Formats: sequence, structure tokens, C-alpha cells
Amino acid sequence: MWQLYQFPLCPFSRKVRLLLGEKGVGYELVRESPWARRDEFIDMNPAGQVPVMTDQTRNLLLIDSMAICEYFEETIDKSAMISGSAAYRAEIRRQVAWFDAQFFADVTAPLLHERMEKRLVTRVAPDSKVLREAMRAAVRHLDYTDYLLDHNNWMAGSTMTLADLAAAAHISVVDYLGGIDWKNHEQTARWYRGLKSRPSFRPLLSERMDGIQPTSHYDDVDF
Amino acid sequence: MWQLYQFPLCPFSRKVRLLLGEKGVGYELVRESPWARRDEFIDMNPAGQVPVMTDQTRNLLLIDSMAICEYFEETIDKSAMISGSAAYRAEIRRQVAWFDAQFFADVTAPLLHERMEKRLVTRVAPDSKVLREAMRAAVRHLDYTDYLLDHNNWMAGSTMTLADLAAAAHISVVDYLGGIDWKNHEQTARWYRGLKSRPSFRPLLSERMDGIQPTSHYDDVDF
Repeated sequence: MWQLYQFPLCPFSRKVRLLLGEKGVGYELVRESPWARRDEFIDMNPAGQVPVMTDQTRNLLLIDSMAICEYFEETIDKSAMISGSAAYRAEIRRQVAWFDAQFFADVTAPLLHERMEKRLVTRVAPDSKVLREAMRAAVRHLDYTDYLLDHNNWMAGSTMTLADLAAAAHISVVDYLGGIDWKNHEQTARWYRGLKSRPSFRPLLSERMDGIQPTSHYDDVDF
Repeated sequence: MWQLYQFPLCPFSRKVRLLLGEKGVGYELVRESPWARRDEFIDMNPAGQVPVMTDQTRNLLLIDSMAICEYFEETIDKSAMISGSAAYRAEIRRQVAWFDAQFFADVTAPLLHERMEKRLVTRVAPDSKVLREAMRAAVRHLDYTDYLLDHNNWMAGSTMTLADLAAAAHISVVDYLGGIDWKNHEQTARWYRGLKSRPSFRPLLSERMDGIQPTSHYDDVDF
């Protein structure tokens, strides 16, 4: 049985969980708070980051969210999420990197820092200037996803791919933390409603981060 | 003909160039300074980063160094660099992510910022405290690569893989900028000498970044 080390608001773990859900791979959640830098966890992953997956019966250890996604894409045929021509696969991977690097740096990371880490770890008040800037960046990013979805039903083209799962993972974390203004982003909102209603998404929507309540519309699939 | 947008000290472009060299893929270099944020380049890649590859005759555009590597790994059989079992491939990708994220953040990025960007762009003196910290981090990272090479000839195991190319790309940039103290790192030094003597490495060693001289041993394959 796979074990997945994560915490509920980790966007990289969410991307992996959505992929596992779509592929029908069973796993057990292990709660890990990377900021605690637990010795046994650092021994397992020197980078100190989640997600990490282990299967002790088969002596397997998977580290890094993209390496994990590629592993399951290679080993489980069901619901291919990096498929199509080599050029299409390159575009899928470009978009995943875009959400995991650019969207994360501009939006997800500052939101997590201000509204989660400061509350749970350092216990200082959030910086409203940083929050405003991150929320302005979220608007720019949703303008871009609107543009991507203008001509296609899914982020990278005509099929649901890992790019959609990566985008939804980040957007869901930011939405939980109240960082998304859905006004004027109808294409992205429609796409997100479709993803939220998928069985793979349900476990994420019902989970809560200790001491941090989501926005009221967070788990409403019709919002 | 492929065109590769890059600048000589970009570690991510170097990783791609090493892969293309090993696979025997021809390309033309296009010099791009991402910090200039040239409009036409941003239109091509909204992330504003190199490497980017284009093949205009086939209307192909590849963005993100890992997406580019996976593309050539999928389309060119020669010199497979992400090969072996699914678990081994996951370990290769974990290590690539380690060098491109951890090693980059701790060592390559601060060295590039202090010794290249400050010289070429902002024209202020480097911060010696930041440099010292980055060079201390380089020692810790080379302790780790020594450990990886203690039991194997190559970073991920018994074969040369993309993990070696990623590691060598970062180490070569940092070595150019005088950030590597080779003392007490005999395993990594031996491995690096082997890589430096490969034909794929030669073009990198002969190139210079405008106005920045490399350390005297930089292109000495016997050092």
C-alpha cells in the first residue's frame, strides 16, 4: 500500500492526489508538516519537502511531485495525463512547470506564507501589502488561464491532462485561503466547476487545515 | 534546424546542451539575456526564462528545461538519459529536481546574482556575506554528491543519466564563477573530470560570458 506524506494545503501533493484519484491508485495519507523539519522525514527526503510516497512492502521511495507523476504515468495506463504527440506532451509539461513555478511563486507561496505559516508557525499577523500583491498576481494568472481556455476545453488542448491537475491544485489552495476573485474569469470558473465535480477532487474539498477555515464557497461545486 | 535561446552561464540551458550533445542533435545558439525582458522573447515564453527551443520549419516551440529534456528523450533514442526501471527513472528525475531546485537555490542562483547580474546589470559590488554562505552551501552539496558517488560511478546509479548532466551543468557554472573548493571532494572531482572530457562538454568549456573571466582551472580537463 502506498503512503503519501503531505499536508492538506500543499499544492504539489494535491496535484499528485488528483493524478492518483484519476488513475484509481489507492494510498494512505500521512500527515507531514515540512516546516517542522522532522529528523526521520529529512532522512527520507533531504530536500525536506512533500509530497513523498513510499511503498514499504516493495521498498519503493518516490520524491518530487513531478517525478511521482511521471512514475504513475509510466506504470498505470488508466487515464493517461501526459499523452498525445511529443510536442503536446512538451506543452503539458511546460504548463505544469508554469503552475508549479510561476503561479506558485507569484500567488500560492505568498498566500500560504501569509495565511497559513504565519498563523500556524510564526504566529505573526499577515502582511496586507504582500497579500494584495499576490491577489493582483492571481488576477493576471487567471487572465492567462482564461486565455488558454478560450480556444480549448482544457488547459493544454482538447483533453484533460496533468496541466489541468496542476492548475486546479494551485487554484484550490489559493481559493481555500480566499485569494481568488472569481469575478470576470468565467472561462476558468467554468473549467474549475467541472474539475471540482470529479470524484478525484472530492477528498480534497472535504479536508480542512487545522485552525484555518476555507472561504464559504470553497467546497461548493456549483459556485 | 533547432534554435536554442540561452546565455553562456545558464545552468538549465547547459543541461539541455549536454543532453543534445550526447544525443547528437544539432542546434544553433541564440543569445538571450532574460534579465533584459525583451518583448519578443516574453511573447514567446511568458515565463521570461531560458532555455527555449524553436524549430521554425516544423513550427515547434519548446519551453522549460525539463520539458525540453523529456521531449528529446522521447524523440531521440540515442544515448537514453532517463532509462531503466520506473523506480530508477523516478530517482533520476528526483536528482534532476534536486540540482535544479535545491542546488540552484543554495549555490548557483546566489553566485550568478552576486558575480554575474551585479556586474552586468545592476553594477553594484557583490555581497561577500551572501557569497560566503553560497560557497559553504556548495561544500555541503559536494559532500552529498560525494556520498552519491561513493557507491556508484554515476549520480543515480551505474549508468550516466540526466542527473549527471544536471549536476555537471550547475557545478560548471559555479566553478566558472570560482564558487567551488575542490579540496576534499575527490569522488565528485573524479566524476567531473570524466564529464569534462566528453565531446558534449567541450563547447561549454570554451565559451565565455562577456566581461567575466572563469577561474584558471575552469576549462582544464585534468584539474
